[in-house]
Amino acid sequence: MFTRANAPLSPGATIGILGGGQLARMLAQAASRLGLNCHIFAPDEDSCAFDVVRRVTHAAYDDQDALARFAKDCDAITYEFENVPSQTAAFLSQRRLVLPDPRILATTQDRLVEKEFVESLGIATAPYAAAGDVPQLFEAVRRIGLPAILKTRRMGYDGKGQMKIEPDGDAAAAWRALHGAPCILEGFVSYEREISVVVARGRDGTLQSFDVTENEHRDHILKISRVPASVPQPVADEAIRIAETIATAFDYVGVLAVEMFVLRDGTTQSVLVNEVAPRVHNSGHWTIDGCTVSQFEQHIRAVAGWPLAQPSRLGLVEMTNLIGAEADDYAKWLTIPGASLHLYGKGDATPGRKMGHVTRVWSGMQS
Amino acid sequence: MFTRANAPLSPGATIGILGGGQLARMLAQAASRLGLNCHIFAPDEDSCAFDVVRRVTHAAYDDQDALARFAKDCDAITYEFENVPSQTAAFLSQRRLVLPDPRILATTQDRLVEKEFVESLGIATAPYAAAGDVPQLFEAVRRIGLPAILKTRRMGYDGKGQMKIEPDGDAAAAWRALHGAPCILEGFVSYEREISVVVARGRDGTLQSFDVTENEHRDHILKISRVPASVPQPVADEAIRIAETIATAFDYVGVLAVEMFVLRDGTTQSVLVNEVAPRVHNSGHWTIDGCTVSQFEQHIRAVAGWPLAQPSRLGLVEMTNLIGAEADDYAKWLTIPGASLHLYGKGDATPGRKMGHVTRVWSGMQS
Repeated sequence: MFTRANAPLSPGATIGILGGGQLARMLAQAASRLGLNCHIFAPDEDSCAFDVVRRVTHAAYDDQDALARFAKDCDAITYEFENVPSQTAAFLSQRRLVLPDPRILATTQDRLVEKEFVESLGIATAPYAAAGDVPQLFEAVRRIGLPAILKTRRMGYDGKGQMKIEPDGDAAAAWRALHGAPCILEGFVSYEREISVVVARGRDGTLQSFDVTENEHRDHILKISRVPASVPQPVADEAIRIAETIATAFDYVGVLAVEMFVLRDGTTQSVLVNEVAPRVHNSGHWTIDGCTVSQFEQHIRAVAGWPLAQPSRLGLVEMTNLIGAEADDYAKWLTIPGASLHLYGKGDATPGRKMGHVTRVWSGMQS
Repeated sequence: MFTRANAPLSPGATIGILGGGQLARMLAQAASRLGLNCHIFAPDEDSCAFDVVRRVTHAAYDDQDALARFAKDCDAITYEFENVPSQTAAFLSQRRLVLPDPRILATTQDRLVEKEFVESLGIATAPYAAAGDVPQLFEAVRRIGLPAILKTRRMGYDGKGQMKIEPDGDAAAAWRALHGAPCILEGFVSYEREISVVVARGRDGTLQSFDVTENEHRDHILKISRVPASVPQPVADEAIRIAETIATAFDYVGVLAVEMFVLRDGTTQSVLVNEVAPRVHNSGHWTIDGCTVSQFEQHIRAVAGWPLAQPSRLGLVEMTNLIGAEADDYAKWLTIPGASLHLYGKGDATPGRKMGHVTRVWSGMQS
């Protein structure tokens, strides 16, 4: 049996990572600092994570021979994305310790199940209703009201798989635009700001949350994260409590991110959960340069069964994503004092593609 | 012709590195943050730098076929150690831009030539004299006096290739212990502290020095670096001036380290150059976690023809080397708040072998 009670990994051990994008790349970079190796498994031959490790498997997620060889070469396995096919995860789990436990993915891969789970913990979400077919969608519109956002239950990210329905909008047209996939309708929340908490949970249940991050999106893609978020301490505390409650309820091992909305009603602020990401998260990239430990290292420590670090922020931090052609301006960032440039080694700077990020830290300024 | 006036590298380009130890490993890690790839060339199949790149050449430094293929795969070439054979460097220089210019190695590979070079710049060194044979050694002892240190002119590091001769000591025995290799005799300097300056110089001649580091050795191996060094500002300024003078005199491109002694005569302090290392240096490892840019990234920027960053220290910094079996205690460091652990992925923790290091930063404390 492969359980988290297995012995911690030793230096020189190999962690397998499913997925070959920038998150896998930064996980592998963090592992290599600790003397741990990574083996990247990804179906795309251009996977940018391939460039920072010695051992790679370029194969489809349903290639059982490749998966079996991969499992054999690894001492533990993790993943960079939440849409790992459940059969892939099950196949690997029979052969190696896979963390976080892939059973969590059944919850986080489905927006409806995820929201029900969060709600079951007594944590608020935006109002929502299932929209499995058009009659159910009309019923949902009656209950939730408009404007609202229709989202596919599965496989959405960076604004893909969602349509806003205006007060005078055509719900059925939105439904067709999403190709009739099973959806949920979410009430449109007029929030004051978006925040997120990145929390790490060790194999022993220890929790370590990074400081609350404030996020600014453009075209549904994260553009800027600022830390700390400009929210009062009780709101920050509540956001961290929510993230830690979710991580504990999942009996999670690794790094998990919770995106939240801060709402204001007069002088009262409250927090709603928007989304749970069972992985390292773009809004935690600032930790590489702005904290004594990065989210990537915390995830690797957790998977390895090593103690988590106590994160300590090094100052005021701002992280800016370089999206699409913005990365062509990398040379500008090289000349800005204190700016740490990260490029992911991706080929084509297609619109909306995350090509890199820049972190700036103003040290000696903690809040 | 391959000159530094060649176009800067583009993201995705490949930098070749001669040598596969921890310095090459950390150079490759820094390059990957910037979206640049490294190809490691090293003769030892266990080279720890092999684990963090996709392309490696495992071959001898005189294997011209391997060198030719390596050069073809690289857009520029650098090295992690100063003892690159001159024929290897010459062979590669005909095929690719090699930085720093390997002609510098003729100076830094020979302690006598190096000291003459430093002296020619009007910079003080410990008293020294050539000791090419036993009669010359006796003459050197007469001039320099005892105690003194006999050092081989070539290939010494971490205390290897040197013997102290006590006032009543046997100079001829020391000579035999060093196998009769050409040596220099260095006067024994009673210094107050050891410091070093790590300076980066860009292709365009721009200089960026890191803050002066204070170094504590044990058994001739660096054990602890503290930053900033506890020296008065004029001493720190002079140390930086010396390092920048040497880098400029070499018309250097990349990172160079100068080890110095601080001497006290009553209330007056002065600085002597001990050694010049034409490479990234152990006493600069603190910059990975303790500065807005690392020495490794500065070196990569310089080699790539990219602008250097302006380094800004994030607080008080202490770097501790993990030597030999000390690395077995890695788990202890994982639990110390604020400690950043680096393990180099080396196999055998033989005595004296540098296995990793730990950096601690006290942010908000600049001096």
